[in-house]
Parts: sequence; C-alpha cells; structure tokens
Amino acid sequence: MDYLSYFQDHRETHLAELKDWLRIPSISALSEHKPDMQRAASWLADKLTQAGLEHVEIHQTAGHPIVYADHLHAPGQPTVLVYGHYDVQPVDPLNLWDSAPFEPEIRNNKLYARGATDDKGQLFLHVKAVEAILKQEGKLPVNVKFCIEGEEEVTSPNLHPFLEKNAEKLAADAVLISDTELLGPDKPAICTGLRGLCSLDVKITTANTDLHSGTFGGGVPNALHALVELLASLHTADGKVNVDGFYDDAPELTPQMRQELARKEFDDEALKRELALDDLFGEAGYTYVERTGARPTLELNGVYGGFQGEGTKTVIPREAHAKITCRLVGRQNPQDILDKIERHLNTHKPTGAKLAVVQREKGNPFTIDPSLPILQKAADAFEEVYGTRPVFTKDGGSIPIVEAMARVLKAPVVLMGFGLPDENLHAPNEHFHLENFDKGLLTITRFLHTLS
Amino acid sequence: MDYLSYFQDHRETHLAELKDWLRIPSISALSEHKPDMQRAASWLADKLTQAGLEHVEIHQTAGHPIVYADHLHAPGQPTVLVYGHYDVQPVDPLNLWDSAPFEPEIRNNKLYARGATDDKGQLFLHVKAVEAILKQEGKLPVNVKFCIEGEEEVTSPNLHPFLEKNAEKLAADAVLISDTELLGPDKPAICTGLRGLCSLDVKITTANTDLHSGTFGGGVPNALHALVELLASLHTADGKVNVDGFYDDAPELTPQMRQELARKEFDDEALKRELALDDLFGEAGYTYVERTGARPTLELNGVYGGFQGEGTKTVIPREAHAKITCRLVGRQNPQDILDKIERHLNTHKPTGAKLAVVQREKGNPFTIDPSLPILQKAADAFEEVYGTRPVFTKDGGSIPIVEAMARVLKAPVVLMGFGLPDENLHAPNEHFHLENFDKGLLTITRFLHTLS
Repeated sequence: MDYLSYFQDHRETHLAELKDWLRIPSISALSEHKPDMQRAASWLADKLTQAGLEHVEIHQTAGHPIVYADHLHAPGQPTVLVYGHYDVQPVDPLNLWDSAPFEPEIRNNKLYARGATDDKGQLFLHVKAVEAILKQEGKLPVNVKFCIEGEEEVTSPNLHPFLEKNAEKLAADAVLISDTELLGPDKPAICTGLRGLCSLDVKITTANTDLHSGTFGGGVPNALHALVELLASLHTADGKVNVDGFYDDAPELTPQMRQELARKEFDDEALKRELALDDLFGEAGYTYVERTGARPTLELNGVYGGFQGEGTKTVIPREAHAKITCRLVGRQNPQDILDKIERHLNTHKPTGAKLAVVQREKGNPFTIDPSLPILQKAADAFEEVYGTRPVFTKDGGSIPIVEAMARVLKAPVVLMGFGLPDENLHAPNEHFHLENFDKGLLTITRFLHTLS
Repeated sequence: MDYLSYFQDHRETHLAELKDWLRIPSISALSEHKPDMQRAASWLADKLTQAGLEHVEIHQTAGHPIVYADHLHAPGQPTVLVYGHYDVQPVDPLNLWDSAPFEPEIRNNKLYARGATDDKGQLFLHVKAVEAILKQEGKLPVNVKFCIEGEEEVTSPNLHPFLEKNAEKLAADAVLISDTELLGPDKPAICTGLRGLCSLDVKITTANTDLHSGTFGGGVPNALHALVELLASLHTADGKVNVDGFYDDAPELTPQMRQELARKEFDDEALKRELALDDLFGEAGYTYVERTGARPTLELNGVYGGFQGEGTKTVIPREAHAKITCRLVGRQNPQDILDKIERHLNTHKPTGAKLAVVQREKGNPFTIDPSLPILQKAADAFEEVYGTRPVFTKDGGSIPIVEAMARVLKAPVVLMGFGLPDENLHAPNEHFHLENFDKGLLTITRFLHTLS
C-alpha cells in the first residue's frame, strides 16, 4: 500500500490516539502536574514500543522523565536522532479558551488542545511515520533513535546533563526535530536559526507591611511605583532595549541577510488585521521579520503587585513582581545578558526600594548553514509533498536544546516544522491544522527514505 | 456607680460582644459578602435596641443597608448625630496575618481582627457609651441619633443620596465620628482636615490574544510594556505627580500652616525603623507630615497582567491592568482630577496600545476651623480622660461622607478618633489597643455630658 493510502486508512485511529495523549495535562512549569508528566511519558513509551522501536526506556531525572527508544538495524546507513517534547505550556487565562485545553476537539479540520501543535502533535508524526515504515516494509531505511523530554518549556534543565553524559548512546549523523513552523498553508520552511533565551524574576519590596494609602500616601515608597519606573527604564521610547551593552554581541544585519529575510514576503498589514492591532511595534530601524527573527528582545511576561480584586482597595503595596525573558541572537551569551540586566536594575533602583533578582533559564542562540546536503534533502522531501520548495528561515523562538545537541553531538540539526504561525502556541485556543498532520506524516516518511 | 467602675465591670461582656461582630466578614468591596453585610447590620440594630435607642431601622439600599436609631428625649438640648461604618476592607494577602482576620484574638491587650479599629471597634464605643448613660442615669444629656453605613470603604455610594433625601430626619447640631487616630498612646488628636479621594481603573489591551514571545517577540506591542511606560509617566523622579494641572487647586502651605503641622513632632527615623524602610519618599520640598496630611497624591494600588504562576511563561500578554487612587486637598475636585488623569493617559498612550478607563469613587476634601466651641469642648473631654490637651491635626485619609455631612446638614463634624497610627488598618494584622477602647468609652461619655 502506498503511504498516502496507509495514512488515510489509519487517520481516525491516529487522531484518537493523539487525543488521548493531549488529555494528559503535562504542564512542566507547575509542580502540581508532576504525576501527569509521568503519565505522559509512559503513554509515549507504550506508543514507541507498539510502533516497533526497541530499548524503550523512561529515564527518571531530578525533574520530569526523558524517554529513549531506538531501532538500529540498518548497518552502513546513517543514524537519525528524533528529538521532541511531551510537556506543554500553562493554560491560563482559562476563560479565553473556546473549548477546554485538555479536552481535545476537532473543528474545521483543526485539532484544538494545549500541546496540539507544540509539541505533542508534531512529535507524534515521527512515531507514526516510523511505525508506518516498519509495518509496510518490515525495516527502516536508516537507524533511528528517539530522545524525548518533558522539560522543553522550562528550558531542559535535566536534558542538558543527560545529553553530555550520554553523548555516545545518543550519537547520530543528524538530529531531526519538528517544533517549528511553515510560513503558511502551502509555504514550507526549514528553520536555520533559533534565538537564545534567558529569563529572570524581579521582586521589589519597600515597607515590611502593606500600608493605608490615606495615612501613609505621599510619604513612603510604593513598591508598584518603584517597579513600573524600573521596568519602564528597560526600553527607550522607540523600542530599543535600554540596558548597557545589551546589543554588543548581536551581529548587525548585512544587506545579504536582509535580502534573504525579505524572501519571506511577510504581510505586516495582514498580521495587524489578524491580531486586531492598531500598530506593530519594536526596535526602530528594522522590519518585522528582522525584529522577530534576527534581533534580540527583552519582554515583560508578567507584572503583579497590590490589589487585583473587584472594586477599590486603598493600599500602598509592600511588594511587586515582574517576570522577564530575553530572546538572544548571534554571539549573545545568556549569562552575560542576565548579568547586564541585573546591573541595570541595581543602578536604576528607585529610592526606598529593595531589589531581589532570580536568574532562571539560559539558552544559547543556534544557526546552521542552509547549503548542507542534509538540509537540501529535507527540502526535497518537503517539495515532493507540498509541491513547493521550502524557504530557509530564521525563527524567533527558542529551543535551547537545539544548540546544545548540535554542539555536543557534533551533528547537523534539521528543523522540519509543521505548525502554522496562527496556531496560538503558548496562548489560549492552541490548535494544529490537520492538513499538516497529514502532510507531515508523508514528509517525514519521505525524508527518512531519502537518507539511505 | 462612676463610669470608670461601670466600664470596668462590663469590660468582659463588651469585648465578647465586639468579638461577635468582628467575626462577621463584612467586606463591602466583594459581592460574595453581601449576606454578611446584612448580618453585620442586623447585629448592630439589635445592639442599638438593647442599648435603649428607639426607632431602630435597617434601611435597605441598592448596595448595603444603612442603620438608623435615635433617642430624642432631651428637649432644649442639642442633637448629636453619631456616624460610623460596619463595613471593612478586604483581607488579602491572607498569608501575612498572624491570626485569622475574622477570628478575633486579644494579645498583649490588643484586639486583632479586620475591623477591630476601622471602624467596628471605634463605632462600638458610641453604642456602649450611650447604653452606659441610659443605664446609669435613665436619660441622655443630649438628643442622639445614629446613622451607620456599610459602604464607607467603597466611598458611600448609597449614603450620599440617603443623606440628601433624609436631611431633616438626620438634622443635628453636630456630627460625631470616631474613625481617625490619636498621635500616640498618650497624645490625643482632633482631626480638622481629611483628604478627598478619587479612584480609577486602567486597562491596556494590544492584540486580540496572548502571543508567543519567541514567534512574535520584538515585533508586536506588549500590553505590559505599554502599561509600565504609561504608569511611570504619572510621576517625576522626585515624586511629584506629573499630570497637567494636578496641583492647580491644592493650596500652597503658608508658613503658619507649616508651623501648626510641625507641632505633631513626627519622628521620621522612628517610622523608618518601624516599617523597615531604607528611606521615606514623596513629593520633593515637603516634610513627611505635610506630604501625608496637606498634599495630594496619586498612588498605584494594584498592577497586574500576564503570567503570575510558578516558573516562566514566554508570553506577550494582550492585556494589563492598574488600579489608581488619588488623595486630594484644598479645592481639588475629584471629577476634575479624574478627567485630568484620563487626559494624561490618553495623551501618553504608547504605540499600539488601546486604553480603557473606568472612573470610580469621587469624594471631596474636608476642613473645619479648630477654634469652634464644639471642637474646644471635645478637646476638654479628651484632656480630662487622657490628661493632655489634644493636637488639632490634618489626617491624610479620606472619609468623603464627612465633607458631605458638613455640607448637607450644615453642622460641624467632630472627628474624635481612638485608633493608633500603627494599628495596620487596611493591612494584615489590623488591631485596636484596648487601652484606647477603655479611654474611648470614658471620653465619649464625658463629651456627651459637656454638650448639655
């Protein structure tokens, strides 16, 4: 049976299986979901076994488990390591979801659920592609390993040491990952750059208690005033990051790079309409595509302090909080950037405010040369299924483990993503266009064949 | 029996009764406590009846009930209207309370509970003082009316119209209120000024959904960036409110006023130690006492948006919120100030941000001349019980209904408070020093006698 027919015949079963997985709320950031992480890992291990993979192992870590499996019966052929993650982002604000995040629903040929596209849905394609080849042909054209983690959304604290320690076990000629995006329904893309990531928590305290704004108002520091003043100092009015030395290791764009990025033919007006935005906004002097793919950022992800309830509370809050992440490019080093931000915060701290900073994630930026043969083969597979040759892009997101894998395993990383830009990953109503579920299965199957 | 002995004999019973009242969580700002507001009003009505007052009525309103009672059997004598409130502030953050806010506890002769001093505890003194005189003497030296509301902490939306409509029923020669503070354990004070209050909610929205900070970061407006920039623009670095025309109707302090305020002999260093503050902070060019009593303020009471959970969420939030209150002095008009702030926010709104403002409370400032005979009589009563003549102060807090009562009833308002500045009103661990519970009963009893 040809693969198109095979995947059509098994479509209903495959989607039912994926929905089962999506029902498990495997939110890595929230400790209350620890048991769900174990369930999600076990579910995957079972599916890998059923698919015909061998040496299926669930490695416990200090955090969430890593799932390993392999099928090494193609002597003389290259080895491909498939990476992905079974953890998902938190789901708040819940009230903005049209259907419950962990009750998957198909509407208009789109599968709605947290993790539908990032990354359970995309990772699932690899399991089913390998299963299909084994069922149809009894063997694989290449050697395959799976290394799947549950901490991608919290920047892989345990996969990094696992990788270093098991470099031999994980050794491969190429790493294959589906956790990036197409440019549009019929515009495949291969990502050749990912931004790095670093994050920090900021806490401002003033008095040792909340104070009455009548009795004390005007006389004592207010933690919220101090925080908003401090946070506002992090950017200039024209959208540049205002931290000393922040841009030092971010390479200036060459005319050639700008030309390549312009090939994306991005429609600013369409995005504004889609997101109901009056204006786009960011670092002055760069296009939208440049700003989101090839320039670094500093973003406030959360700010909170004082009264959030109904009505009014005349309080001067004693503490206020902010959560900050940066996206990094080029030779920007996460530790160096975190230190520069912390220095800025200490220098700009307003009168009467005490500052506490917790540095969190640290992930390096990643780049790969699109002229490598394996990337050209990936482009061939896309072209056969989608009928159009993919564009080589730079993605604004961060998968810090990608850079680590390339570095530790000394192998090229093929970022072959099947998501779409409007699929609300990390936001309410995350979904996966099932057209790319179907095409993804075929593309991966095709790609594995081209490698032998 | 003299009143000192009477109140000592009844102390245990009185405190047990007050604790019962404090157990009712009558938080006016939270709609879930609507039934508790009814219970708290009924409790008070019962006590007024037991005390010997007549025409005890619970007036239902669009919000929480108003309790009325009177005792009008002193022909030819003046009429005193006692005002107070049985509603309390919200209690969050709960984790900072040493004992539960609605389980009253006495520790070191202090009564701990939400409402212990603001205002159930102080209001209760008037009920018991009137009861004591009636029990001891069979009649009151003056005519007395009680008008007690349950919406003071949300700026009395229903008492204002009630007052206008019932001006004749409530007519009095003086209004008596205990909802302010002593300067210290042995430093009584009579408040001759209260700041006005106005409040507003600010909401910033950007995109129609939360966005992934990798995919979109650097390219689109972030509601939190817009909000902190906007909020930071409301003050200058030296603590002045940066809104056009904000200070227009706030009178400059004369050398005489500054001298009067300096009589308070406030110890800045002691306050810093007590609140564990590195520095005091506020409008440049004024002392702490001037800033908190005689100068207007703009305070952030709450700011929130984006992720507040454990760990990191790489999100660009679509909305962000702030809650703001101002304290007003002199001829500052709450509506005018709200309009000026709204104009400022609209003018300074960052690129790509949509702004929504909800104007809330509007209360005028209040002042009274300390040389009025009734204020001198109140000072006499304090002096007899405390052994020292009270200072005439200006309080930074707001009881907007005070200005309305003075205006509508054309009567002087005597602000005879028994709280202390460190009693954590509007904050965790609110309490009432019971020494002033005892002295308060005597002072009120004495004052009512001096009026006849």
